[in-house]
Amino acid sequence: MNPDLIAYIKRFVDISNEEIDIFNSYLKPKELSRKAFLLNEGQVCKSRYFVNSGCVRLYYINNKGNEQIIHFAIDNWWITDYESLINKTPSKLYIQAIEKTSLYELPEESFDALCEEVLNAERLFRKIMEKTYVAIQKRIEYIYSLSGEQLFETFISANPEFTQRVPQYMIASYLGMSPEFISKIKSKK
Amino acid sequence: MNPDLIAYIKRFVDISNEEIDIFNSYLKPKELSRKAFLLNEGQVCKSRYFVNSGCVRLYYINNKGNEQIIHFAIDNWWITDYESLINKTPSKLYIQAIEKTSLYELPEESFDALCEEVLNAERLFRKIMEKTYVAIQKRIEYIYSLSGEQLFETFISANPEFTQRVPQYMIASYLGMSPEFISKIKSKK
Repeated sequence: MNPDLIAYIKRFVDISNEEIDIFNSYLKPKELSRKAFLLNEGQVCKSRYFVNSGCVRLYYINNKGNEQIIHFAIDNWWITDYESLINKTPSKLYIQAIEKTSLYELPEESFDALCEEVLNAERLFRKIMEKTYVAIQKRIEYIYSLSGEQLFETFISANPEFTQRVPQYMIASYLGMSPEFISKIKSKK
Repeated sequence: MNPDLIAYIKRFVDISNEEIDIFNSYLKPKELSRKAFLLNEGQVCKSRYFVNSGCVRLYYINNKGNEQIIHFAIDNWWITDYESLINKTPSKLYIQAIEKTSLYELPEESFDALCEEVLNAERLFRKIMEKTYVAIQKRIEYIYSLSGEQLFETFISANPEFTQRVPQYMIASYLGMSPEFISKIKSKK
């Protein structure tokens, strides 16, 4: 298993080497070339994904026909469409690689089997969900509290690597602003 | 235990009557009068709460000195400040009763003990978190996709009971709009 994932898991739960081996046996390594899709609108999402290296975006097409990015996931982040995964309903979302990306896929049957075998797996994923929830709640706080300029500054200082790796128009989409607005903020400095 | 909470738990996991009894032994019934606080800014949040009946709001004071509501919780909803609870840091939020409210408090030490004793408790809370996450992600989608008028209509048709129970200025705060804007939408019909 990727040592980063082992370290990640151990930050959340006590887990033995034997349990790590079981966990590892359920992970399917997957390579995505740039612009390849992990999930398409209309498909039922059947897996959770851990990004070993690279970057993917989760987005939908809004009613004006534009891409609206909901999340990015880079090295050591989990990503999936929880709504489609939990409800077994066709996804409204796309998950696409922005760079060449190396992932682990954890199919939902394997996830269920893992949770039966490794007691701490439920705890691990409960804690990951809580942390993910805190992050998305903070995003709502920011949307309601910060000006466009502050939103951009806050995002960039919390995620400095993104400016290097993610095209500016995608950061604009994630923050709900136009690429022109970001160019204006940048040229002001 | 409140039969609604038993039904709620059984929607997520298989659980025996003995396990329900253990769960129940960790819950502390709590009554809040209208406007009473469950959590104040600066306190460390140490419990999860299940609303048996009534209504509470979770909010913060934004940099303009105004209340910004992040969530409501009515009958059969869980509420807490996950950031403060997980990180054991002082909360930036308030949780306050809007109506006379009857709750169960599940203190975090009890939660940990419950998860040790009842195998399915971790699974239950992992699934609750996933569902809660789907709801908040959908809210971000709505913020970025819908006009103010559509946001209001969508909220009201998904939560018709709120218009009866929650003052209009609080719904406005939750939706990030002014009470005057909501009055204008209503008078247009």
